[in-house]
Parts: sequence; C-alpha cells; structure tokens
Amino acid sequence: MPESSSSFSAESYFATQPPPPGLEHDIEGVKEFVRRQQEKGRNIVLVTSGGTTVPLELNVAYGQLRPSVRFLDNFSAGTRGATSAEYFLKAGYAVLFMHRQFSLQPFSRHYSHSTNPFLDFLEIEPGVEERSSFTASGAGSKGSQICVTLDKRETLLEVLTVYKAVHAAGTLHTLTFVTVNDYLWLLRAVSQELSVMKRKAMYYLAAAVSDFFLPRQKMAKHKIQSGKGSLHIEMDQVPKILKPMVDNWTGKDGFVVSFKLETDPALLIPKAETSLQRYGHQVVIGNDLNRRKFEVVFISWKDALPSSSIDTADSSSSFAESWLRIDPYDHNKEIEEDIVAELVKRHEMWIAGGTTSIKP
Amino acid sequence: MPESSSSFSAESYFATQPPPPGLEHDIEGVKEFVRRQQEKGRNIVLVTSGGTTVPLELNVAYGQLRPSVRFLDNFSAGTRGATSAEYFLKAGYAVLFMHRQFSLQPFSRHYSHSTNPFLDFLEIEPGVEERSSFTASGAGSKGSQICVTLDKRETLLEVLTVYKAVHAAGTLHTLTFVTVNDYLWLLRAVSQELSVMKRKAMYYLAAAVSDFFLPRQKMAKHKIQSGKGSLHIEMDQVPKILKPMVDNWTGKDGFVVSFKLETDPALLIPKAETSLQRYGHQVVIGNDLNRRKFEVVFISWKDALPSSSIDTADSSSSFAESWLRIDPYDHNKEIEEDIVAELVKRHEMWIAGGTTSIKP
Repeated sequence: MPESSSSFSAESYFATQPPPPGLEHDIEGVKEFVRRQQEKGRNIVLVTSGGTTVPLELNVAYGQLRPSVRFLDNFSAGTRGATSAEYFLKAGYAVLFMHRQFSLQPFSRHYSHSTNPFLDFLEIEPGVEERSSFTASGAGSKGSQICVTLDKRETLLEVLTVYKAVHAAGTLHTLTFVTVNDYLWLLRAVSQELSVMKRKAMYYLAAAVSDFFLPRQKMAKHKIQSGKGSLHIEMDQVPKILKPMVDNWTGKDGFVVSFKLETDPALLIPKAETSLQRYGHQVVIGNDLNRRKFEVVFISWKDALPSSSIDTADSSSSFAESWLRIDPYDHNKEIEEDIVAELVKRHEMWIAGGTTSIKP
Repeated sequence: MPESSSSFSAESYFATQPPPPGLEHDIEGVKEFVRRQQEKGRNIVLVTSGGTTVPLELNVAYGQLRPSVRFLDNFSAGTRGATSAEYFLKAGYAVLFMHRQFSLQPFSRHYSHSTNPFLDFLEIEPGVEERSSFTASGAGSKGSQICVTLDKRETLLEVLTVYKAVHAAGTLHTLTFVTVNDYLWLLRAVSQELSVMKRKAMYYLAAAVSDFFLPRQKMAKHKIQSGKGSLHIEMDQVPKILKPMVDNWTGKDGFVVSFKLETDPALLIPKAETSLQRYGHQVVIGNDLNRRKFEVVFISWKDALPSSSIDTADSSSSFAESWLRIDPYDHNKEIEEDIVAELVKRHEMWIAGGTTSIKP
C-alpha cells in the first residue's frame, strides 16, 4: 500500500488548515464566561464530549452540514462527557461544555428522544376552568392541562431543579463542533482563553477525536463521484495536540485530564503511561471498552499523590495507578460521580500547589 | 486511480452480505402491525428517513455501535421523513417509520434538545398542597409543581394531543437502522411484508442512502490502523435496489415514491425522469438542495394523471412535471403538508385503479 502521507505538526496544521467561520464569535462568548466566573471566584472545567467528523467533500458549510455531504465519523454518544459535566456543576465548577452537535448534553441526556421520550410522560387532563394557571388557551383545547405522569415526576423535578439553578447561576456554557478541524481550532482557542485561570482551570478531554483527517488542500481532488466505480480515500494523521496544549496553550498551569479507551486490557496501563510520559500532563483515565461504565483506572505521577491514594506503584516506576470501581448492577449510580469527586480532590491539591508534577 | 470495484447486483448483494441480527424480530413486529391495519382497513405508508452509515471496521455490534468504530456517513437530520410521517398520520394512514437511529422522529422532532429543549419551557412552581394531582412526592420538593410556560403550552398541547391519539390508535410503528446494510435488508423484508397490502401500500423513500459500501469480505484487511501513516479506504457501489423493489418485492402493486436531491437545478428534471424510466415506479420528487424547504417538483407518468394536474408536459415526452411551492417566509407552513396531500390524492387514484402506469 503506497505511503504518501504528509506529516502535520500542530504548528503546520494551524498554519495550513482554515479556522471555522464561527470561531471568533465562540471565543467572545468564552471570554465573557471566563470573566464572569473569575469575578465569582469559581474554578472552571473544560469538558470535551462526543465524536468528530472528517468531511470528505468540500461543500460543507460550518454549522450547517449539507445533506449531500459524506464524512468519516467516530461514534460517541457523549455519555461520559455529558454525565461528568453534570457532576462538575454539582461540585460547584463552572463548565465549558464543548461537544459534538447533537451529542448528549447535561440534563437533557436523561430524556433521549429514542429511549425516554418526554412526550410519553406528559398527560393531558380535561380542563377544570378554575385552575387557570394550568389552562391551555388554544381553541379546541379549552381548559385542558398538561401534567407529568406520577412515576416520572420526582426524577424530572430533580433534574429540572438543578437545570434551573445552573441556568440562573450562569455556570454552564455550551460550544459546538462537528468536524475534527472545528474541534482542533476550538480546543486551542478555548485553552488559550482559559489559561488566564492558571491552576484553577481543569481540562477534561473526553471527546473521541479522529486520528485521521483530509487536508483542505487535498479535498477537491478527493471529491466523491457516485456512479463511477469504487471509492478511494486517502487521509493524513491528525497532529498530536496534547503536547502543545500542555506546554504552550495552557501555560503549563492547567490540570489536564485525558482519556485512553482500549479493547485489550493488557494495553491499557502501558498506553496510558506512555501518554503521560510523552505529554507531561496530570492524569490519564484509562477505560476498557466493555467495562467503562463501572471501572476506570487513574494513571498519574507517583510523587503527585499522597501514598494513601495509590493502589499500585512499582518502586522503579514514576507512575501510580488508582482503580475506581462501582457495582455494575446498581443502575442508580453513575461512575462519573466518583471520577469527578476524585478529580476535584486532586485539582484542589494542584491549586494549593501541594503537588508537583514531573514534566519531562 | 486504480479501479478494482466488484459490481454487486441486488441479488449478489443479499447472497454475500450478512443480514443484521435484529431482522427477524423486526419483521415479526411488522407482520403484526400490517395485520392490525388490514383489519382496520387502513392504508399503510412506509416512510424511510435519515442517512445511512458505512462502517469501516468490523467490531460493530448491531444496535450498539462501539465507540471505537469509524464509519462513513451521509448526513441527514431526517426532517423530510419525520415531518411527512406526521402528515400521513393526520391523513389517516398507518405509518411504518423506518429511520436512522437518533434521526428526527414524528412529534418529538418539534423538541430538539439542541434548538428547542423541553427543559427550557418547564417551570417549577412552589407547592400548593391542595392541588395534589400536580404534587411531586420527592423529599425536599414537597408540593412543588411542574408546569409548562404559557407561550409553549398551546403548541405542546397540539403536538401531544395528536401523539396520544396516534399511540392509542396504534397507527405508528418505528424501525431503526444504522448501516447501509441494515437499511437494505430491512427495506427488502419490510417491502415484502407490505406487499400483501397490494395497491393500498405506499413506499415513501426519503432516506439518504450511501452510494458506497465496504463488503464484509473486504473489511478485515481494511481495518484501520492508527499511528501508521495515512489511511486508505476503497469501497464498492451499493446496488440499485429500486428495480427489484418495484418489480419483485412489492409485486408491482405498491405506490412507490422516490426522491432526487440535486445541487444543480439544470440536472433535477432530467435525472428524475431517468430514474422513473429506469425503475418504472410512480413518482420521483425532485428537490434542489437550497430550495427543498419551499419547492419540490413531482415527476410522474403523463398518462397517470388528469391533464389538470400537469404543469408542463412536452408532447413528445412520457413524463409530466408538477411543481409544488410554498411561501419561503411563512414559518407556520411546512411543504410536507402539501407533498403528502398531493400523494394521498394520487394514491387514491392508484388504489381505485383509475390510473395506469407505464412500466417499461
């Protein structure tokens, strides 16, 4: 198989690939959000969530993918990111939620149109004129009321209460990406804006990012022709951006958490350690594809933790691993609650400066 | 560029590609649905909606796409299909709604989590103990009520009323596909089941189906390796299935409506006519990418229509075109309402046998 890939560094990537049109507007919103949270003295976490796409044709308008457009996609519903964002909000963090368009979002994630459609638990009650505050005014529906079925009411009230509180406090700001190019530009710009927070910013990189992309310069000749035999696509590798993110964009002060998803359990720890060694950030959360809902492992620098939090640490190794497990059969418990609690604790140590990180 | 595609007929496709595991179960549901509608004497329309995917790796479990899986996708939110399904239901049809997982669905489409999140128009009112039917029983929320904000109440009540009526009548049955392989197998099986309806079945093929696929036999060697340079993908063409669908699966009795989406207005009519000529079905609805929300054209056989419904028909041509337009600025009007009304009228003529179709 011919090898004709050009190799992109993060620098050459941003020098040659065009920024998404909405970027400046998005960044204005982030600036304003960061300013408000600084005034309130809150910590901020950037949560990235969902998969990225790689468009294969040029006729893609930002924010408005045309129906004829074909693209390569990484599947991720965005459960980890959306769930974690909720727990960060409950822990008092301000959350920049940067997610793939149409992936799950905090709060509304509980009411997927496919699995828990909200229309199913709304009921129409025939009108009683006196209860005017519940009266619909539409012709033909005079006096009818909409109410929530009893068994769903408690959960909805809980979700709604937190949702309203978060909106009132202004602690959630949502950003949307579609393509891997949108993602990379947005991640860089948001990280740079967040760097003014110094150690009070956390970066929780849960999005499933494509390893490959199609450089804009190659797109025209790759435009797909239907009806002309088979389809050939040749792609380049997406540059590794964790290194510049840790060293430059966040000014070495951010608390950076990345994820490693594997299908082979034997690879999980070594690959997570390699990642930490290579990029010099704070935590890699390793998860096995089939166990990720109830088991994760935190890989971090041994000397960044009190020995009580370390499960296993080879004395010859710089790394510590801590396992986090919940009961797989307890459907009222989400592992993200514990992941976030552990990270909040570690982030506090990081902010207090009580931990040092070996940054190679 | 090398050409190494194998050419698949519909027959060789189904002989070599494996059926999705859920197929038999899905078909049982369709059988039961068709039986009930026949008892009630209702017409049935099959509405296909949303885009299909082409997985590039083998580790895909049906109904549960794994996060690591990469695939080629056609983007379609499913607006045309979901909206049309609602109008078919309002017109008294039973609807088999066969859609891409997570694409828009009838009724819930009005409440996209991204653009019109329902949590935004629910309000919590502090409890008034007497109104016990609205009382949430959760601890800490004693007596609190959930109600719908005034400006959203009327629309929600309308949507909800139809939704409940449809559920009570049992006239909507939903089927889900993800990959183009799921789609093809499901379309064939559902069409075969529906063929017992003879002329009382309509097939409204609004899904955006991939032109390419990766045969199962080629998948292993195409498994994507990250970190090893650039990515190469080579695909085969999806077989044209309209011909066997019209001639065999539906027993030549179904009223088949296909769609043609183009970006070049000059190509719209000729391509729609070619399609009708080639497959011998009843209607091609042509739409221009940028005008599809307010303008479509019906291409059909000239002798199948009374001359009053024909806008333009070259005397030397076998085809008739009828344009359907709505005011682009009227946001209370959906063009699908008129599309469905026109099709219902034509379908009635088809059922009555008053129309003949030239089937080459």
